Amino acid sequence: MKSTPVKGTKDYLPQEAAIRDYLQNAILETYQNAGFSRITTPIIEDAVNLDKSEGGENLNLIFKILKRGQKLSSALASGNADEKSLSDMGLRYDLTLPLSRYFANNRNDLLTPFKVIQMDRVYRAERPQKGRLREFMQCDIDIIGNPSSDAEVDLILTTTKALKKIGISDFTVKINDRRILKSIFAYAGFEESDNEKLAIIFDKLDKIGIAGVKAELTEAEFSQNAIDKFISLFESGSLDLDSVAKVCDAEYVTSLKYIMDTVKKVSNDTIAITFTPSLVRGQGYYTGTIFEVEAKGYSGAVAGGGRYDNLIGKFLNEDIPAVGFSIGFERIFGILIEQGYTIPGQKKRIAVFYDPDTFADALVYAESLRNEYMVSVFARPKKLGKFLNKLEAQNFAGFAVYGQDDGIKLFDAN
Amino acid sequence: MKSTPVKGTKDYLPQEAAIRDYLQNAILETYQNAGFSRITTPIIEDAVNLDKSEGGENLNLIFKILKRGQKLSSALASGNADEKSLSDMGLRYDLTLPLSRYFANNRNDLLTPFKVIQMDRVYRAERPQKGRLREFMQCDIDIIGNPSSDAEVDLILTTTKALKKIGISDFTVKINDRRILKSIFAYAGFEESDNEKLAIIFDKLDKIGIAGVKAELTEAEFSQNAIDKFISLFESGSLDLDSVAKVCDAEYVTSLKYIMDTVKKVSNDTIAITFTPSLVRGQGYYTGTIFEVEAKGYSGAVAGGGRYDNLIGKFLNEDIPAVGFSIGFERIFGILIEQGYTIPGQKKRIAVFYDPDTFADALVYAESLRNEYMVSVFARPKKLGKFLNKLEAQNFAGFAVYGQDDGIKLFDAN
Repeated sequence: MKSTPVKGTKDYLPQEAAIRDYLQNAILETYQNAGFSRITTPIIEDAVNLDKSEGGENLNLIFKILKRGQKLSSALASGNADEKSLSDMGLRYDLTLPLSRYFANNRNDLLTPFKVIQMDRVYRAERPQKGRLREFMQCDIDIIGNPSSDAEVDLILTTTKALKKIGISDFTVKINDRRILKSIFAYAGFEESDNEKLAIIFDKLDKIGIAGVKAELTEAEFSQNAIDKFISLFESGSLDLDSVAKVCDAEYVTSLKYIMDTVKKVSNDTIAITFTPSLVRGQGYYTGTIFEVEAKGYSGAVAGGGRYDNLIGKFLNEDIPAVGFSIGFERIFGILIEQGYTIPGQKKRIAVFYDPDTFADALVYAESLRNEYMVSVFARPKKLGKFLNKLEAQNFAGFAVYGQDDGIKLFDAN
Repeated sequence: MKSTPVKGTKDYLPQEAAIRDYLQNAILETYQNAGFSRITTPIIEDAVNLDKSEGGENLNLIFKILKRGQKLSSALASGNADEKSLSDMGLRYDLTLPLSRYFANNRNDLLTPFKVIQMDRVYRAERPQKGRLREFMQCDIDIIGNPSSDAEVDLILTTTKALKKIGISDFTVKINDRRILKSIFAYAGFEESDNEKLAIIFDKLDKIGIAGVKAELTEAEFSQNAIDKFISLFESGSLDLDSVAKVCDAEYVTSLKYIMDTVKKVSNDTIAITFTPSLVRGQGYYTGTIFEVEAKGYSGAVAGGGRYDNLIGKFLNEDIPAVGFSIGFERIFGILIEQGYTIPGQKKRIAVFYDPDTFADALVYAESLRNEYMVSVFARPKKLGKFLNKLEAQNFAGFAVYGQDDGIKLFDAN
């Protein structure tokens, strides 16, 4: 038997699990206080739903569940059994597909606009490597059924509040609109079918600068005319919203300005939010606004999201406006653990030791301390000193020996 | 695409999810305050571990995960692919196997005795039927590495405290010892190989009485001598601990008495705990004390557990004493929901409505209310009355319209 967890998954030690719980609760409470409601959905989804979902490359990473009993026998007896015929369900690879299904299944019992929280585990059969987990936590809020840019504002204010709550305060919100991206590519004269390739190159602007982007576009053999026209947009050094307004539908720019202005106003200018024309974000399903949060000390985004108006309604065969924002929980947890994070304002943990025949009385004593402390009761170990070292390593704050009248001894007071 | 969740699993509506979260947190806090620490383990376990675990019939209910890529191709190419060769992992069917693996994997980082909380989802491919879920929550505390009966006392006091915390206060703890059960069967002269069959019949004592047990034993054609000797134990009407003491090892009785006396003493006689010689409990892995909690208004047990000294050490090839207590979370949740449970002491939820162009100000106003309320901000709907009805149905307590100076209107004050 193997004592390690399966590749790409993790056992969390008590202190780690406590920090995960604390962070999740802090985020959850912020979301709830802002009027969002948590739902939960099963980890298992129907294979048909997973296969037809818009997961892009994630569809190749689904953990599939083997059929059982007669169904399995039939599949095997067919002589041409394959992945598809052998499995009837799979583990979800994100929380958006379950949310779409859930909304279709429970629409009549839900308030619309539906302001929803999902914080739960998802599964991807990634090649195991550092920082890539096969079982991980996603932490999403979504607003379903609100076509107005107010939904974006609500999400940005709520998500940044949650980030502040868990100690991430030095950050910038980057914002763009998929339709602006399309418009500037079209204005330059690129083929629409090249948009994805173009986006991948343009996304590197922050790293390689406009000269680097130009070089990569040239290397990829795009039309020289289109490249020149595209690069000319950056003549003044950067591309601001006013310049963009000249080459795309005014509505896109108005909506971004409204979102940015409102976020600044409501937050008293405490939230930095900047138009970032090269922001792309991966998921193919975004249809409008896209945004992400960059924070000091974190490489890559700590949160990201956008508007996806064609996805939620898939089960209902109608377009339903939706916008979501997801916190990169595992990335944040990983960094906080490395930094030696401690849970703020937590009740202290102490141990109460007892000698033979005083267990009942020691329990009563321990109970009397539980308003102030989290209290574990232990038989007094033979090697008390060694055990005390272990307690300290396990984040205990101190101990008391029942029957000795010197009360609680805190380690940091020694 | 199918909008219903897969058979035997559930979508939880916002109010249901909130109640589940509340109950889980109330239980978790009680456990933590009593010095237990939460851990989390992956939902996926290695197939080898699952197959070799002591799950009894649950081993037939494992959701198996299909191999991927080259491994799958090889299994299929072999020509005799079967369940075993096609899968390399499975979903855990309980939390005890993962706990054993976890303890072996992390022993050096853990404090022993290890007082551990697990509250998480498990999976069983049951035939879907009312009250049988394929994805459900287990809620366990265990003490690993403490051979003394003090561990049982700690678990019983802590679990009953958690039950009280979630509103279950009219209950009885039934307690027995597997070794006593064995001893009285042996005393009567039954064959040891018949113990399981005997236990199944004896377990019905509460329902069918001693005459019914006698009738079933006779019908099952056990030796008449043994039946008579067994039934004679109940001559005085019931079988108490003093009578049991005459036919089994004194230590078993002493330990049960100690547990019962200590629980009564520490709880000031507020916990009813009774020796129940016919208590059997299903799992084959129990080796000593067994117990369960029966509560008024609940059929069957609301919590159960016992000592299992041979299981945790399986990965380490040594016997490690362990005792656990599990709350029947889904059963309790089901009954509470039917009874129209409301979360005690919860912040009230209200809506703030805004008219066009006042969104930013309405957000600032909403934020000012969030110390007292959970506040959702909505554009004022065209049909306000209809929307208010929906809010009330969704457990909102009231609303305010930004810009109207009459403030918050609570529904129950109307």
